[in-house]
Amino acid sequence: MANFDLMRELQTENGSKLVLLVMDGLGGAPLQADGPTELEAAATPTLDNLARDGVLGQTIPIRRGITPGSGPAHLALFGYDPLEFQVGRGVLEATGVGLEVGDGDLAARGNFCTLDGDGNIIDRRAGRIPTDEARPIVDRLASIEIPGLKIQLRHVKEYRFALVMQGPGLQHEIEDTDPQKTGVPPLPARAMTKTSEPAAALVQTWIEAATEILRVEPKANGVTLRGFSTDPRLPKFPEIYGLRSACVAVYPMYRGVSRLVGMQILDFDGETPEDQFSTVTENWDNFDFFFIHIKKTDSRGEDGDFEAKAKVIESVDAALEILLNMHPDAIAITGDHSTPASMRTHSWHPVPLLLWSPRNMRPDLQTRFGERMCEVGGLGTLPATDVMPIMMAHAGRLQKFGA
Amino acid sequence: MANFDLMRELQTENGSKLVLLVMDGLGGAPLQADGPTELEAAATPTLDNLARDGVLGQTIPIRRGITPGSGPAHLALFGYDPLEFQVGRGVLEATGVGLEVGDGDLAARGNFCTLDGDGNIIDRRAGRIPTDEARPIVDRLASIEIPGLKIQLRHVKEYRFALVMQGPGLQHEIEDTDPQKTGVPPLPARAMTKTSEPAAALVQTWIEAATEILRVEPKANGVTLRGFSTDPRLPKFPEIYGLRSACVAVYPMYRGVSRLVGMQILDFDGETPEDQFSTVTENWDNFDFFFIHIKKTDSRGEDGDFEAKAKVIESVDAALEILLNMHPDAIAITGDHSTPASMRTHSWHPVPLLLWSPRNMRPDLQTRFGERMCEVGGLGTLPATDVMPIMMAHAGRLQKFGA
Repeated sequence: MANFDLMRELQTENGSKLVLLVMDGLGGAPLQADGPTELEAAATPTLDNLARDGVLGQTIPIRRGITPGSGPAHLALFGYDPLEFQVGRGVLEATGVGLEVGDGDLAARGNFCTLDGDGNIIDRRAGRIPTDEARPIVDRLASIEIPGLKIQLRHVKEYRFALVMQGPGLQHEIEDTDPQKTGVPPLPARAMTKTSEPAAALVQTWIEAATEILRVEPKANGVTLRGFSTDPRLPKFPEIYGLRSACVAVYPMYRGVSRLVGMQILDFDGETPEDQFSTVTENWDNFDFFFIHIKKTDSRGEDGDFEAKAKVIESVDAALEILLNMHPDAIAITGDHSTPASMRTHSWHPVPLLLWSPRNMRPDLQTRFGERMCEVGGLGTLPATDVMPIMMAHAGRLQKFGA
Repeated sequence: MANFDLMRELQTENGSKLVLLVMDGLGGAPLQADGPTELEAAATPTLDNLARDGVLGQTIPIRRGITPGSGPAHLALFGYDPLEFQVGRGVLEATGVGLEVGDGDLAARGNFCTLDGDGNIIDRRAGRIPTDEARPIVDRLASIEIPGLKIQLRHVKEYRFALVMQGPGLQHEIEDTDPQKTGVPPLPARAMTKTSEPAAALVQTWIEAATEILRVEPKANGVTLRGFSTDPRLPKFPEIYGLRSACVAVYPMYRGVSRLVGMQILDFDGETPEDQFSTVTENWDNFDFFFIHIKKTDSRGEDGDFEAKAKVIESVDAALEILLNMHPDAIAITGDHSTPASMRTHSWHPVPLLLWSPRNMRPDLQTRFGERMCEVGGLGTLPATDVMPIMMAHAGRLQKFGA
């Protein structure tokens, strides 16, 4: 019996409130062997109080040694085994900016690139063209029409956009057109299977029309498409856990994953932890579960800025009282993966986890929220997919299994 | 390859003796965050000696976050994945009071209830009618005869009894007749499948005869039946591990589960730890494996009596020398699940585990048997189904896997 069946069978409604607070890329590493990690270096009095009264552990997002992308890492936190439930990059990108991807629709992630006079790529990201400049270019591509298809296009950020095609027989087994290097032209849209040949041909038609429109652009005069995919038809999170579920995230990607699993996406102004936590408090009565996504821990990790990543953590800590004042029945604070500033990228390292509940805690010996204490925390080392069942238990939302 | 296949392939006979000592509901929780758990509060010099020379860990009975019932929790300790091997409540109840449930027999758990003049349930447990009053009522129901069936009935406790029907074609896919609420009549015995319709009709016949007999009763004037099930035909424990296996338990439920996996049930007088341990010593030469079940840790936990639960643990500790004097080759001391006195019920928290053997130990850093030391013990956090293989290894009963 899979975890989901267990959750469906054992869940019970009791009016409790659950909060999953994800600091993206939270896990870090020390700059020298005996130094602190970013989380250990940060001054986090409120998190440390929760750590003292709560219980720590560390999660394995995918499998040991595997560095997760953001999509699978979040699916794992939501309880979906990321090897069983795979979501295409195109779908993630499209749903992330609010495009609906229905069953049988074809979604792709698009990049603007810069081509030379021979049509070879000289910059795969079109000089990281600013959002202000890129947006009107995307609008111009929206004029492309292909008979029998409904085509939706939306700008994402800088050189990135999302494409969704709707129409009959759009098989999504199509290879990326991004050659992953410069000095060569974009690849044609090639079908991986016989049945996806018609779709590949339609995509190629679109690419050629787009390239024609982009000829006049100094930087964004070419496109590549990748991550062709369709609606993965994931089981729905609110149904699995019996939780009215809301997502409070700034970045499209995380809103997209949340939408795919059936959470309601809350709109709000601002982008600080205070803004996000206040959004939770304003919507407190309407939901049972809040997923809050803090992006900047990951961003500063990818910048390689150890101090700045620690500061982001401190800013979350400083705002945390806003959440705690709502008296959640269970709160899990963790990352989706590690992004050590020393590595400037996602990593495979386990992810620190803090679980706190006002009731039924068995506190461990640990007194601060940090990697080394999480490694010897009372929850042990656990798959990220187990975080939701543990929260559900602490919130009193799971009945006994068997007599 | 499942654990069982590994055990069957690698087991070897060497005359060693294994003891699995289960204190039901052993895991606890502190009354305040920085206080001790029941086990940590108990004075347990002998257990602490074993902890110092042995190795600690904590088990997950079912899955993280899942609160186990007693049946699945014990199956897990015996090495059976409780999600793969599910035993119906009727079978557990019946075997627990010594009724045999053969392949194709139909077992159910029965409750007396109180009906009003319109036949609606006003008390689902017949006022928790005392055992002394209920037992003769069960005897009167034993007079019901249905042609072609052998019917066995046995009182369990208070308002509860067990029913086993033997006869041809008794499919067990029958819905519970307990509506789980008052103000409505008991449900009829409804077949879930076409093939179980004849059995459902026979059950309904029995219910109507019983209700007729019970008309004169002031409290127990109705019955509900649930957990219809048959012999789960579990693989047999003695064969899987190559161990002549005995159960030393006071309570029917645990004797029942042990019988279902093929252990021999030892009868004995008394119910103290001393009585149980002495029963082991008296039977030492006739078995290779002893499962000893101490109930009262769980009972005092369910009472919410922290001090009394700690005292039960102390009484086990005080008697433990009786067992140790027999020089077991491996002894595992653990619970089937947690029952924190603060919660007065089973919980999902991991369960402390102590493993000791006179040989080939790799002791960890831990020096006392308690939850917080078990959390950082040398065995880590492990599924309960791994306890038997670890014991088998320490007893020298497993050969090398592969060359």
